[in-house]
Formats: sequence, structure tokens, C-alpha cells
Amino acid sequence: MTASRLERQIAFIIELDKMKNIFRKTKVLGTDRHENDAEHTWHLALMAIVLAEHANVPELDLTRVVKMLLIHDVVEIDAGDTFAYDVKGHEDKAEREQMAADRLFGMLPEEQRDELMALWHEFEANETPEARFALALDRLHPMLLNFHNNGQSWRENGITHDRVLARNSVIENGSEALWAYAKRMVEEALAKGILS
Amino acid sequence: MTASRLERQIAFIIELDKMKNIFRKTKVLGTDRHENDAEHTWHLALMAIVLAEHANVPELDLTRVVKMLLIHDVVEIDAGDTFAYDVKGHEDKAEREQMAADRLFGMLPEEQRDELMALWHEFEANETPEARFALALDRLHPMLLNFHNNGQSWRENGITHDRVLARNSVIENGSEALWAYAKRMVEEALAKGILS
Repeated sequence: MTASRLERQIAFIIELDKMKNIFRKTKVLGTDRHENDAEHTWHLALMAIVLAEHANVPELDLTRVVKMLLIHDVVEIDAGDTFAYDVKGHEDKAEREQMAADRLFGMLPEEQRDELMALWHEFEANETPEARFALALDRLHPMLLNFHNNGQSWRENGITHDRVLARNSVIENGSEALWAYAKRMVEEALAKGILS
Repeated sequence: MTASRLERQIAFIIELDKMKNIFRKTKVLGTDRHENDAEHTWHLALMAIVLAEHANVPELDLTRVVKMLLIHDVVEIDAGDTFAYDVKGHEDKAEREQMAADRLFGMLPEEQRDELMALWHEFEANETPEARFALALDRLHPMLLNFHNNGQSWRENGITHDRVLARNSVIENGSEALWAYAKRMVEEALAKGILS
């Protein structure tokens, strides 16, 4: 019984190795290599533990935030990464991602499948303080990388500052402090000419 | 005040981007690319939330395990990755890593520096149930990757099964169930001829 649970869990962990092969638009600082989903997720989990105090709701369940972050992008193994500013790609994103969630979380023992599926839906719904803070970090992360990398993915994809502000204003729902910081970063990026 | 705390925290987060450039001996499954510390750490944190039930001590503080895992390798930014089976490299490892910890955690506000430094020392001391479970995952992870990758880093570095068993028997202190699983994997690897 335990062996069989463990075997399913290990199979899930091995399947998720594929996160290391899903590449994002942002690049690893100081390199010409695109960051992958595993690296992005690691950075987000680290941000969660370092920046938790800046969440709008101070008594956040940090474990739930971290769990949510750790699984929020796994659906991209089947559904691919939809670039933040790709309007067309977002049309059938929800359907593609639900199928991916069914397959991937379905590899786990039932109650774990249900727990991770619920966490994923909680993240997507963006209604609880934990989900809002997790999303704030998810949006802040590429802004931080771009800012510290000469505007790399903004410039490569012709993203203007008004789109950056419009897309990322949800940060405010999770953390007013981080949104204030993000806006200052956008202004500075404009002044430096690394964002148009 | 808050701005200055936040700026130090962001500087730490950006500095830790370097984890993505520290390569390990193991490779990403199905590729010829070496895994890096950020990817490894992401995989460990995922393992912690999926495999927590297998820890020897059932009422584990999972948040502390995850925090410990998230920072356990950051010292390698300055001290480099010491290969598990490199005896000479381990001689001055502790000293090199303490200097790295002082510099890196020292970037943070004082009480966060102290918290993460304490967590890192707790991991290194390997005495609490949380540290023992974290180390068990850290040792199990490359075994899993090697087993599912045709013995890749064992074969490339001439590592024999007795060394694998000797080095990784500490897994038992964190999880008897995972150690039983790991030993079965070693036997199967021997039978398959992917470990000598």
C-alpha cells in the first residue's frame, strides 16, 4: 500500500522534471540562456519566504503560498508557456491547462491529487490572500529580471510601459508595497530607456 | 524604513539568480544539459510537499523543511558545488561555505539574516527531524535522476554501488521508507547494469 503510494508520488516527481525544459521569455541574468519554469518557480518560492512581510494580509499561510507557487506552472508541461502579452494564446489557455492538470495531478494518490488541484484552482481564481500574494510574486519576478537585465524581454518583444503597468497592476491586490516598488521600477526603466 | 528593508531583500533575490549558473553532475532527463542548483532546489521543495508523509517524524514542520531546502545550497554561489564523491573538495568545504553564508545572508535585514543562517546551520548539523528529512531528499534526488537517466552521473564519474550506498545511507535518518526505496533502486540499477 505504502509502496504503491510512494511509487505514484515518485512517478509524479520524475514527470515534473519536464519543467526544466519549458523555457520562458526572460533570460538568466548575465547569460543568453532563457530561464525555464523550474528555475522561475524556485525563484518565486524564495521570494515568498523573503518577502512575506510585504503581503497586504499579514497573517498569511506561507506554506499554502509556497505550495501554490510550486505547482502553479506545472500545467505548462502539456499546455506550454503562454507568453504574458500573447492575447491569442490566452483564448483556449484555461481549457488546455485543465486537461494538463487532470493528467498531471491525476498521477498522485487521490487526496494529494485533490489537494494540489484545489491549490491550483485557488491560484487561478486569485481570490484568497494567499493566491493574490502568490500571483503578485509571479508578476513581479519577470519585471525584476527585466529591470536588472537591461529590459531584455520587454525590448525583445516590443512591450511598452503602459502594457507592463496594465498587465501587472494585479500585484497591488497581493501587496501594495510590492506594487509601489514595481511602479518605481517601471519609471526608472523608462528614464533609463530600457522600456519604451 | 520599509523601502530600505525591501531594497535589501530584492538585492538578495537578484544575487541568488546566480544559482541558475551553478551546474551539478546530474543532467536534466532526456537532455545533455547539466542540471543547475536552482532547478535542483525547486525539485527538492516539490519533493518535500509530495513526500512529507514518509518522514520518520510524522509531525514535521514542513515550512521549515522547505525554507531549509530553498537556502541549503546558496553558499555554492561563492564556494562552488563540491561533488558528492570528491573527498579532497570536502576538506575546506565548511570554511568556504561559512564565508559565503556570511556574505549572502548578510545582504538581508538582520533578523532575516539570522533566521536563514540558523536554518542553514540546522541543515548542516543534521540533527533535527526537519534537517534530517531535508537531507534525505537532497540525497535521494540525484539517485532518482540517475536511476531514470541510465545511471548517467554514476557512470560518467565511475561511482560504484557501494559508494552510493555508503554516501546516501543518511537518508534512513530522515525517512526509513525513502531509504528502503533507495536501496531497491540501487539493486535494480545493479541488475540493469547502469551501476557497477
